[in-house]
Parts: sequence; structure tokens; C-alpha cells
Amino acid sequence: MKALQYRTIGSRPELVEIEKPTPGPSEILLRVTAAGACHSDEFIMGTSAEDYYFKPLPLTLGHEVAGVVEQIGDGVHDVEVGESVLVYGPWGCGRCYQCAQGQENNCEKGMRAPGIFSDGGMAEYMIVDDARHLVPLGDLDPVKNVSLTDAGLTPYRAVKSALPTLVPGTTAVVIGSGGLGHVAIQLLKALTQSTVVVLDVADDRLDFAREVGADHAFLSNPDAIPAVKELTGGHGADVVFDFVGIQPTADLAAGMIRTAGHVVVVGVAKGAVPIGQTTVPLDVTGRAINWGSRTELMEVVELAKRGAISIHVEEFGLENATEAYDRLHAGKVRGRAVIVPGA
Amino acid sequence: MKALQYRTIGSRPELVEIEKPTPGPSEILLRVTAAGACHSDEFIMGTSAEDYYFKPLPLTLGHEVAGVVEQIGDGVHDVEVGESVLVYGPWGCGRCYQCAQGQENNCEKGMRAPGIFSDGGMAEYMIVDDARHLVPLGDLDPVKNVSLTDAGLTPYRAVKSALPTLVPGTTAVVIGSGGLGHVAIQLLKALTQSTVVVLDVADDRLDFAREVGADHAFLSNPDAIPAVKELTGGHGADVVFDFVGIQPTADLAAGMIRTAGHVVVVGVAKGAVPIGQTTVPLDVTGRAINWGSRTELMEVVELAKRGAISIHVEEFGLENATEAYDRLHAGKVRGRAVIVPGA
Amino acid sequence: MKALQYRTIGSRPELVEIEKPTPGPSEILLRVTAAGACHSDEFIMGTSAEDYYFKPLPLTLGHEVAGVVEQIGDGVHDVEVGESVLVYGPWGCGRCYQCAQGQENNCEKGMRAPGIFSDGGMAEYMIVDDARHLVPLGDLDPVKNVSLTDAGLTPYRAVKSALPTLVPGTTAVVIGSGGLGHVAIQLLKALTQSTVVVLDVADDRLDFAREVGADHAFLSNPDAIPAVKELTGGHGADVVFDFVGIQPTADLAAGMIRTAGHVVVVGVAKGAVPIGQTTVPLDVTGRAINWGSRTELMEVVELAKRGAISIHVEEFGLENATEAYDRLHAGKVRGRAVIVPGA
Amino acid sequence: MKALQYRTIGSRPELVEIEKPTPGPSEILLRVTAAGACHSDEFIMGTSAEDYYFKPLPLTLGHEVAGVVEQIGDGVHDVEVGESVLVYGPWGCGRCYQCAQGQENNCEKGMRAPGIFSDGGMAEYMIVDDARHLVPLGDLDPVKNVSLTDAGLTPYRAVKSALPTLVPGTTAVVIGSGGLGHVAIQLLKALTQSTVVVLDVADDRLDFAREVGADHAFLSNPDAIPAVKELTGGHGADVVFDFVGIQPTADLAAGMIRTAGHVVVVGVAKGAVPIGQTTVPLDVTGRAINWGSRTELMEVVELAKRGAISIHVEEFGLENATEAYDRLHAGKVRGRAVIVPGA
Repeated sequence: MKALQYRTIGSRPELVEIEKPTPGPSEILLRVTAAGACHSDEFIMGTSAEDYYFKPLPLTLGHEVAGVVEQIGDGVHDVEVGESVLVYGPWGCGRCYQCAQGQENNCEKGMRAPGIFSDGGMAEYMIVDDARHLVPLGDLDPVKNVSLTDAGLTPYRAVKSALPTLVPGTTAVVIGSGGLGHVAIQLLKALTQSTVVVLDVADDRLDFAREVGADHAFLSNPDAIPAVKELTGGHGADVVFDFVGIQPTADLAAGMIRTAGHVVVVGVAKGAVPIGQTTVPLDVTGRAINWGSRTELMEVVELAKRGAISIHVEEFGLENATEAYDRLHAGKVRGRAVIVPGA
Repeated sequence: MKALQYRTIGSRPELVEIEKPTPGPSEILLRVTAAGACHSDEFIMGTSAEDYYFKPLPLTLGHEVAGVVEQIGDGVHDVEVGESVLVYGPWGCGRCYQCAQGQENNCEKGMRAPGIFSDGGMAEYMIVDDARHLVPLGDLDPVKNVSLTDAGLTPYRAVKSALPTLVPGTTAVVIGSGGLGHVAIQLLKALTQSTVVVLDVADDRLDFAREVGADHAFLSNPDAIPAVKELTGGHGADVVFDFVGIQPTADLAAGMIRTAGHVVVVGVAKGAVPIGQTTVPLDVTGRAINWGSRTELMEVVELAKRGAISIHVEEFGLENATEAYDRLHAGKVRGRAVIVPGA
Repeated sequence: MKALQYRTIGSRPELVEIEKPTPGPSEILLRVTAAGACHSDEFIMGTSAEDYYFKPLPLTLGHEVAGVVEQIGDGVHDVEVGESVLVYGPWGCGRCYQCAQGQENNCEKGMRAPGIFSDGGMAEYMIVDDARHLVPLGDLDPVKNVSLTDAGLTPYRAVKSALPTLVPGTTAVVIGSGGLGHVAIQLLKALTQSTVVVLDVADDRLDFAREVGADHAFLSNPDAIPAVKELTGGHGADVVFDFVGIQPTADLAAGMIRTAGHVVVVGVAKGAVPIGQTTVPLDVTGRAINWGSRTELMEVVELAKRGAISIHVEEFGLENATEAYDRLHAGKVRGRAVIVPGA
Repeated sequence: MKALQYRTIGSRPELVEIEKPTPGPSEILLRVTAAGACHSDEFIMGTSAEDYYFKPLPLTLGHEVAGVVEQIGDGVHDVEVGESVLVYGPWGCGRCYQCAQGQENNCEKGMRAPGIFSDGGMAEYMIVDDARHLVPLGDLDPVKNVSLTDAGLTPYRAVKSALPTLVPGTTAVVIGSGGLGHVAIQLLKALTQSTVVVLDVADDRLDFAREVGADHAFLSNPDAIPAVKELTGGHGADVVFDFVGIQPTADLAAGMIRTAGHVVVVGVAKGAVPIGQTTVPLDVTGRAINWGSRTELMEVVELAKRGAISIHVEEFGLENATEAYDRLHAGKVRGRAVIVPGA
């Protein structure tokens, strides 16, 4: 079968022919219907040999995967051949304290996520290790919804963690309106009555943010701090979501958060919000959120079924997958790039 | 009456004679029975003229105060002359969103705490602005319990904020076993079944930590990181409380916290825990806690009534108050220094 | 001044002339701009002499009050003559554990709510005991918004208490689409992505429920149980709000709640949901909610400012206030009856 | 192998010889080291043929099980032959919303608990359906700790659900100091600083309650209501745990709960706490708790490892298992009756 693999440190991904896998006991073979390309794939491919701690190469990319059940291993119950499913990506051991409450993204033994720590879904077929990692997709279109598994799930966890703070009258700031950020905007509109402010680096991105629901949109530079303060009676934002994660955005977050506010850092980069008595206002909380739990993915799928969120998608065939990464790398993708093996 | 005042930037506090105040409408005059000396007083007196944002000098020190009601202003209800009380210190406006839920420590208009932003309790008498800032002390000894108002309240808020994480089987680390830290150790023993590890800089302080309940005590240096990892099966601490707040202790906290753990920064200094995707494990939360709410102080008083916590106290007369600060400054106070005006 | 009073057990309210009050220390005199009529007034006037535990008669009715500050007592700060305000109704002592966190509705000394336990706002002027019971109304119309103080606040507390359960994919049932229920429907639409089902006793009320946002509306009878089960894949409702509170509605709630669901009883009547191992599904919670906290009222006002909720109002002059109660008694009011003294 | 089975409606359990089972894919065969006898077994055997909805007879009893791994089915990972384990009893489907967060006790497809809905552990060997239902026991004695799986887990969930209410200064009442109740008392002492009051029907049981930690113990009759009110300054209990569940104990709970308090009904019987506006104080919550989640069992095992709780046990050989049930039925067991197959 065809698969898109990262094969040599520092190289670009390659389309190769590999053997179609067979499911062992408790495993499921999916025929892939869609697989999303993610900035964190770029992070993996940008990691030096010294720091590389992912699956030994070659690595079939793709941690956002939708598929149809093709074949079932021994001991698998309640799964039907032909069923359309999403793959819950942050595979854990299933038995540790974190996994026992469905927080497999925090597995004590470390995640074995496909496309990162094991072979992923940018291929014609893919093995899923256990039925608990399948979430029924029903009638939803796999191409439009495959990215619920990460570009939907991660901002959902971020927003959900802040809901107790986001009571009526509050202001939420989203830094970065890309693949994850533009979903966060929709989630905030669907689940809160907070004022939503978006910061990004170009005017067309601000327009896009307004299109998907932003109440206000500003350029992401130090002037945004007084702008947010003015909007909030001088107090600052109640919650800031940083979907970029570099030091300049972390500094913006620290500079505009109010007393007892929350900063949620989502973007995978080297920035950090300094939590201390003299570096942020009193009682501020910061959290470095990562992906999400099994029930959170179920909730995201329900939101998509209601039409409360939709992910903007650019579609590519498996043959053109490298082009998808080139566009992603260049910051040209509006929303999410999705690879469709059969296309 | 006699009062201990900070009168000139950069100087030491002085004992002076000032006029005994009279309570206006809604105010209460207390005869002070005890007032605690705090490291944050040193922080105030160490602030340069340029950065000074506290009450314009002179400032009567003392934000930990116990007293007996001496006189009642117009419109004060349900307060009896002769009643023994503690003063809830972080006075807010009483009407903003934070104050309306008793979080006056986060008042939107800024705290007007006595001893910091208005005159405090290191004097024979003190004005309290409103009856809601009095908490009945009952039969508890004011000298032994005055520091519940800060050295008790602040670690209580810190520990309480972490209780949902501190389920059985977890490990809590306390950095700094001083005035606040030694209360945190007792609180953790009283309210959780977690393993309590204490880090401090000298062997006698580690002995003190063990005396008040620490399960393990290590010197506070980078070797503490592998020591805590070893105790926790390689995972790290579930919660770290940093009662020092300098960068080396913040780095220890960041270095030993586990996935999905919490770091609570209490110490008022310039350090900060960097919350980001590459600086701490996944899903870690950091919080810069400050003082506490009205109900939290009530809960602390209940703990003292049960004997679940007790604060080690060194007692000084008002005449010797400057000596108390000298010992505090030199790091020689074991527990808390308390000034007793009548002594 | 004119006031609407309940003067004799078992009688109807009467419009009388009484003396205009003067504010004492810490009190505020309001010129009343609007006062809402509530079913619980009917409950008071329907209570027998034996069971009567409210303010000794005569009682000026009106616990939903809006006004303009007319005069300020000694020791009142930060309140301006001429300011337009709502009155937070469940006045507590201000100092007990519940009041110290703004839950004055649960005051340990018992509420002294105006219009119930002290004289209320169905008059030209009214005394408010403390500035903390005033919430700024800003530019909002007092007549349209006076009922936020109860018909808004009570369902808000009910809905807010259930938000952690009402994740995407869940179903909420509202029994009773009257003065409070029709606000609950709007709140559920504004703050959740749950499916909202409304039960009521007449077709025109079901139409009204759909108008304000219900996804489904059924007649409130035992057939509603299988109807809700069918809508929810056989599981039953995740949350049921009972705004009627009689035994037949409590039985409906118990009959349609799912495992681990929540029943919130709001209606003041003699019914009860039986919480036991054989009477409801496993892990079901029931709660008898009453009015709300100070911050909850602030949040409700913010929702009104955003236009997220609006209360349907029928307006009456003080002269016609008895007619308002007659219509309320007859179940003819659509939404809320509001008395406007100056009209 | 030998097994204790319930074979005919209305009969007593019988010791029979049946075939030793073999584990299929994903299953594990345990050699049983201990199995606890529970009042709910009596409930099953007391159910009429008409109401019987458990496993079709014959049913091997025993839902509290400890064992040693004897044999492993295909596709089972990370489980070692010879490992000593506890069995998490409330087996769910593993994939529904409730199971996905480890709340298998609330499984949407219904529990398949061994000893109730499938064959249990009162036998020499037992099949466990999936590795996720095994919790490592380490060095803990299986006989003394087997009942952690229900007599430990159920009160733990009950107490944990009430922890946010049980702040210092509160009072918790435990009705019934039997197999579950005597663990609840220990849990309250280990995890809170609340005053613990126990109600039971005989003086020797009150002595037992005091032995395991009760601060106060009263006979369980209507006089207990004023007794608890007096202890709590007239307010009533903050939390009541009803481990009996009959109407008289539910009435006691409703009669002594305070405003905003919690009643947790654990006892499997026909009683119910009526939650309504005129039947309990304002803002009271009731909950019908059942068994517990996977992480809650892990937490209970940690408590046992620390020595924070211990379950009083009477030990019986499999040959004498019927005698154990006779004593249980007669109310003569102090703590928990445990069957030890090899004894």
C-alpha cells in the first residue's frame, strides 16, 4: 500500500510503497478515509537527531485519522466491519491512573500516538491497537471531520478547562487563528457568552477570525495589550489561549491577563508564561494543555453533529501530500490540510 | 498610643507615639492583642522609592492582627465590645465581582490591606473598616493564633487549591519550611493522605520540617530532583508548593513536577515557573497564589480549634519589635515572630 | 407614599398610603422604578396563620426590585445618588460562612429578603439595608430587567449548577415554561449545546416555549417519559429542571432521568424527587435550588446586557397591581408581571 | 472446581463442583485468593422471580474478588502470571461515555459485574474479562483487603463526592456502622477534619463505631435529630451518609441535614430522601451513589497501603461459605465476611 513517511532526519516526507498490515489480537485494521496534516508533524521533522525521541525512522505520518473498519482481530467486540470511525490519537497504556479515567494523553507510560510514536494514518490502511480508540463518526463526512481528532480536540480541552472562569461578562483572547485557533473561536462562541478577542499577524487572518466568530480582532503585537485592557475596563483578559507558543505570544499573554485569570498555552514551541508573584497578576493560573481525553473527543464529535463547529479544510490526494506540507510550512493553509488516500 | 512605623524609604521600622484613632460609621476600633511580623514587610521595606506603591509613608506595619473590640462605629451590627477577633487582612471594596464571593484578596479595585496599603496592627489600637473583616477567635490564644491570618491562610489557600489533585497515592513537595511552609506541612498531613516531602537549605530546618510532619526532607538543591523522582517511581511530584519564590526554587519545581501536576508559587520573590509546551511536562498547571478568601480564613480558624495546625511563635513586646525584624531578616526566626503590644 | 401590602392572612393585597422611609447608617433609599410579581408571593398569601413565618403583617410585597438611588445613609461608600440599580433580594447577615462567599440565599441566620421577611419594593420608595445589595443596572431598562433579580437569577443558578453535566450531546428537560422556566430555556440555549426539551400543560405554552428556544416541546403528562427516552436513545434526560415542584412533575423528573443524571427542583410546592437506590437510576443527584448568589446576579445582568436573555413582561401601574396578582393567580401571565410605580 | 452458587429463586446458596474455565482472547484466569460476602448478595437472593433481573441461574456469587493470575488469554499485555490483584467489579462495556472516563459503574449498556450479572469469585478460579479490571495488590494481604473492591470503594466514592463540602468546621453523620459504614468512618477521619457522628441501632455497634474513629455515636432513632442539631449550633449536619437506605434512615437524614447540605444514600433498600422545596432545607443535594470508578479503586488501594483504612474481617473457608451468609443475614458479622477458597 502507499504511505507517506518521514524517513531521514532533516528530510521532507516521501510517498513510499509498504506492506499492508494485518490486525493481531485486539487490533483493528482501518481503510483510511482521511488524515490531517499538523504543525506538530513539522515540529517532529524539525527536531535534530540528538533531540529526536519519536518512533525510530521510518515513521508513517498522520495522527489525525478517519477510516472505515476493514478487518477485526481476535477478541475485538462491538465493532462492525464497514463502520465509519475517527481514531482517538493519544494512545496510552489503558491501565495507569491517567488512562483509567480516559486521560490517555497523560499516560504514565508515555503516549504511543500513531503518526508520532508508532505508524500513523497517512497511508491506505492503518492498524488501531484497541477498540477503545475508535469513536463512531456516524454520517459525518470523514474529510471535513477528521481534524476533530486534534485540531478540534485540543482547543476543546483548552476551552473546556477554562469554562468555570468564562462566566458571562468575561473576555477571552485567542492568539493565533490557524488550524486550532479558528476552532477555539467557534467553541468559545458555542459554549460561552464571553467576548472573544483574536490576535493574529496579518489582516487576512483577522478577517478569517471575524468570519468564524471573533467579536474583536487585533494585530498580534505589543499594542494589543492596551487594546485588550481598554476593552475590559482596564482589567485585562480573563482567559488567554496561546495557540502559537513562542516567547513573544507568551509575553503578550502575561501582559494582558487579569488578576485571577487563566493562561492556556497550546502552541508547541519554546515560549513559556512565567508564573510567579512578580511576573503576572495575583492568583493567575497557567496551563500547558496537550491534546485531550476520550470523552472530550466524544463531546467534540457531538458539537460537529450539531453544526456548532466546522473545520475549514484544504483537501489533497495522497500523491500530493508533500505539497500539503509545503503549504503548511509556508503558513498558506487556511484552516487544516487533509490528505484523502482514495482521492 | 505606641505604633511601629516604617517612616523613610530604606530605613528600619521605628517605634513612635501617635494619636489613638476613633471609629467612624461602620468602623470598629480594636485593642490589639497580637500582630505578626512577615517577610512581606521586609519586601515592602526593601522596595526602592521608584517601585514603592504601598501606603505613602509613614506606614504603621502589621497585616496579621488579633484584637479585642474596644469601640463600635455607627451602623455596625452584631459585634460586641469585648469580643476577641482576628482581622481578615486582604481588605477589598466589598462590592466587585471578586469581593462579592469573598475573594477580597483579588479585589478589582486593589486591596487596601492594613499594614500594607493602610495603617496596620503593630500598635496599641487599630481601626478595622468593616465588621465583615472580623472573624471570631473564641477561646483561642491571640498570640499563638494571630498568624493564622496570613501564615495560616496563605498556605491553606495554596493547599486547598491543590486538594483535587492530592488524592491518595500522590506526593506533595513543600519548598521552604519557614513561617508559611511549616504550616503547609501540617495542612497536608491534616487534609490529605499524600506523601509530604520538604526541601530546605539547612539541616536544622529539615529537622524542624520532620518535627511538624514531613515524611521526607532533603536539602534544597538540584540533587533533590532525582531524589523526588526516585521516591515517585520516576514520575515526579504531583504538586510542588514553592514558599520561597526565587528562580532556583522555581527551577526545582519545574524540574520535579510530573505530567498533569500542579505548581503553586507562594513565596514573594522574583522567580517564576515557566509554563509552556517544552518547559514543563504536558498538562502542568502553575498558579501564583496570594493570601486567601474570607471563608478560607474561617476554615483555618476551625483547624486551629481542632488542634490540627499550630504555628510556632516567637513572642516580642512592642518595644522589641525592631529586634523581631532583625531576627526575621537574618533568617533566625523558627516559625513566626509575633508582637504583643501589652507584653 | 403608596405601597401594595398584604395586611390580613387570607386576604388579597391592598394599595395603601404609608410614610416614606428615611435611610439610617449604611442604608440606601431607592425610588422604585419597577417591581416584579412572583408566584412565591401567592405562596406567602396562601400560607395559613399557623404556618406563616414571614414578616409579621402588614407586609409590603415585592422581592424583585429596581430603583434609582434617592438618598444615602451615613457610612455608605461608592454609591451615587441617581444611579440605576437592581436589588439583590436574598439579604443575609453578611458575615456567616455562607454570606462570606456571597451565598446570602443560604444565610445561616436566615434570609431577611425584602417583600418576604421585611418590607419590599411594591411602593414608591424602598430602603435597602446595605450597598452590597445593589447591582448597577447601567443603561438597561428597569421594567424589562427588574425580574432578572429572581425570575432570571433563580433559573440561572439552576442551570449553572448543572453546566458540568450539560456537555455536548446531552439533553436537558425544562418542566414549566412560565416566569422562570422561559428564562431557563434561553439560558440553556445561551450557555450549552444540549438539546432542550420543554414540558408544559397547554399547547399555547408549548408554542411559547418553542418561540424562546425549545428544540422539542411536549405536553406534561406521563407520555412525556417515553417521548424523552426515545429522543435520548433510551437513556433518558441528563438533567431535568422542575419549575413546578408538585408531585406529578417530580414523578415525571424521576421517571425520565438517566443514570448519573441531575434533577433540579425549583418550583416552590409540596412535591419531592425521591433519591434512593430503588427510586431513581444509579448515581442520580437531586437538588432543591433557591434563588442565587451575589455573583450569579452579576452574571445574569451581563447576559441581559449581551441580549442573551430577555424576560417577557406584562406591565401594570401600582394602582393596578392587584389585577396583576389576579392574572398571575389565574395562570394568565405570559412571562412576568411587573409593577411600575410611576406609570 | 468448587463454587458457591445461587441456583434456585428463594433458596440459600450451595457449594457445587463445576468445570474450571479457560480464558479466551483478552481474558485472564485468576486463582481466587479471597472473595467477600455482601448484603447485596442477600438482596439478589431475596428478589422474587418476577423482579429478578440478574444473571440467569445458576449464578456463582462473589463480586468482591482477589486472586493471583493463573493464565492469560491472547492479546493480553502487561499482565504477569503470578501477579496478585484485586478485581474491579463494576464491569462496563469499556467504550461508552461513562466507561471512557472509568465510571464503568454507570456504564450506558449496564454493568456486567461478576457475582451479579456474570459468574463471580466464590470459587477456586474465576475469569476476568479484561486486563483493565485488574488492580495490582502488591504485598497487601488479599484476605484483609479483598473488600476494598466494594466495602472500601463504595464508601470512598460516597465520601469523595462530599469532600468539597466537608471543609474544616463541618459535621458528617454516618448512619450504619456495618461493612461499608465502618470504612466510611475511617475515610472521614483520614481525609477530612470534620466532626464524625455515627448512628446505629445497638450499643455494641456504637462502641465499634467509636473504636474505628467516630467522635460521637448515638442510637439511630428520632432523638438523634435534636442531638445532631445541638452538636452543630442548631444548624444540622453538613453531610449525611445513609448506609442503610430504609425509609426511617432516609427520614433521619432529611430531618438533620442543614441548608446547602448533602445527603448521600448508599444502602440498597427501598427508602428515599425527598428532595423538594418544602421537604428539605434550601439548596440541599441528595445523591444515590453506587460502587465506584476505576481510579477510585486505585485510590482506595493506596489508602490501604498507607494503613489509613483497614476492614474488619471474619474469615471462612469455601466449605463454610453458607455459614458466612447465615451470620450476615442475622446481622452478626462485625465488618466483613470473607471466603478464602484455599483455607
